[in-house]
Amino acid sequence: MSYPRSLQNLIESFKTLNGVGDKGAERYALEMLNKDENVTRNFAQTLIDIKEHIGYCKSCGDIIEVSNREERNTCECALCKDTTRDHSIVCVVQSSKDILAVEKTGEYKGSYFVLNGVIDARRGIMPEDVNIDRLVKRAESAKEIILATSTTVEGETTAMYISKLLKEIYPTLTVSRISRGLPIGSYLDYADEMTLIHAIEDRKNV
Amino acid sequence: MSYPRSLQNLIESFKTLNGVGDKGAERYALEMLNKDENVTRNFAQTLIDIKEHIGYCKSCGDIIEVSNREERNTCECALCKDTTRDHSIVCVVQSSKDILAVEKTGEYKGSYFVLNGVIDARRGIMPEDVNIDRLVKRAESAKEIILATSTTVEGETTAMYISKLLKEIYPTLTVSRISRGLPIGSYLDYADEMTLIHAIEDRKNV
Repeated sequence: MSYPRSLQNLIESFKTLNGVGDKGAERYALEMLNKDENVTRNFAQTLIDIKEHIGYCKSCGDIIEVSNREERNTCECALCKDTTRDHSIVCVVQSSKDILAVEKTGEYKGSYFVLNGVIDARRGIMPEDVNIDRLVKRAESAKEIILATSTTVEGETTAMYISKLLKEIYPTLTVSRISRGLPIGSYLDYADEMTLIHAIEDRKNV
Repeated sequence: MSYPRSLQNLIESFKTLNGVGDKGAERYALEMLNKDENVTRNFAQTLIDIKEHIGYCKSCGDIIEVSNREERNTCECALCKDTTRDHSIVCVVQSSKDILAVEKTGEYKGSYFVLNGVIDARRGIMPEDVNIDRLVKRAESAKEIILATSTTVEGETTAMYISKLLKEIYPTLTVSRISRGLPIGSYLDYADEMTLIHAIEDRKNV
């Protein structure tokens, strides 16, 4: 015995999402079934719209709203057009959401570059699968590249790979990495070993 | 600073799902953005299809596949049509997925009735919001009603409410409740207090 085909198809749709398993997909699909038709129709429309109206900034690779498919790779984002920002400093992040996180601090006045992923050999994501080629081009007009990929194994590997590559091509370019250490408001005895090692190694004179 | 409108709309769509918060919805939406267009289109189609092709069995309320909107409330499910099952026994469950769970055991040979929810005063779900009226009608031709709602506060309340109602209307009807006790393969010292109380109270002679 199993679910009706249409419901099973929706369950499979939800299962295409990372981290959604059999039980979760089943729960979401049954929930959608109980929702108003305009909710499901609207959900469907928003899924269709992202392919129609989301493009990528031709300078930094961040996601932007575009009016049609033709503009998907030909426009620039507001931040790249903003002449009050320092475009000689480029903060390299994995994903658009990292830009939002840094912008929330209100402290950074440079520009960004979105890799759209990290090198992850285990999952078959190689350097050519992330926007490294475009970053190399972007770096030509920069004074400093700040590598702000995550502090996971993959993020560190990617940062190391990019820094080596950029220094080879542009020997005078400053390439930096965000600092690693104890998060603010945390206790030493709750920190993991690797964080502590970095916190001590990367210590600063005061 | 925020996401482009189309992406934000998709994030809002995901947030209509119970248990999906800001972060989860953001992650799902960004993931969909990186998927192939046929994946997002297919997802959209499956959302539209459930309203077109999912109906409810007119006898038990279980979900069924139908060929068009007109058939949504006029057909019977395979189980209700199955003459080898005992239709004088009705197992009352909260949701279609509970039928799948019981059917997997292969032990139960009676029929089902889907309440599609439980009474939950805190969330404003009253007796008239679940299929109790239809259950009363269905019970007319039954010998036994097994109340198999969950053993949560809401499930117990619903079972109590239904049993009282049915006994008033059909004084000779047998109304039973699934047993509560220790799950198989568990240790007493890991069981919560309420489960232990039930396990002792509901003890059976051996």
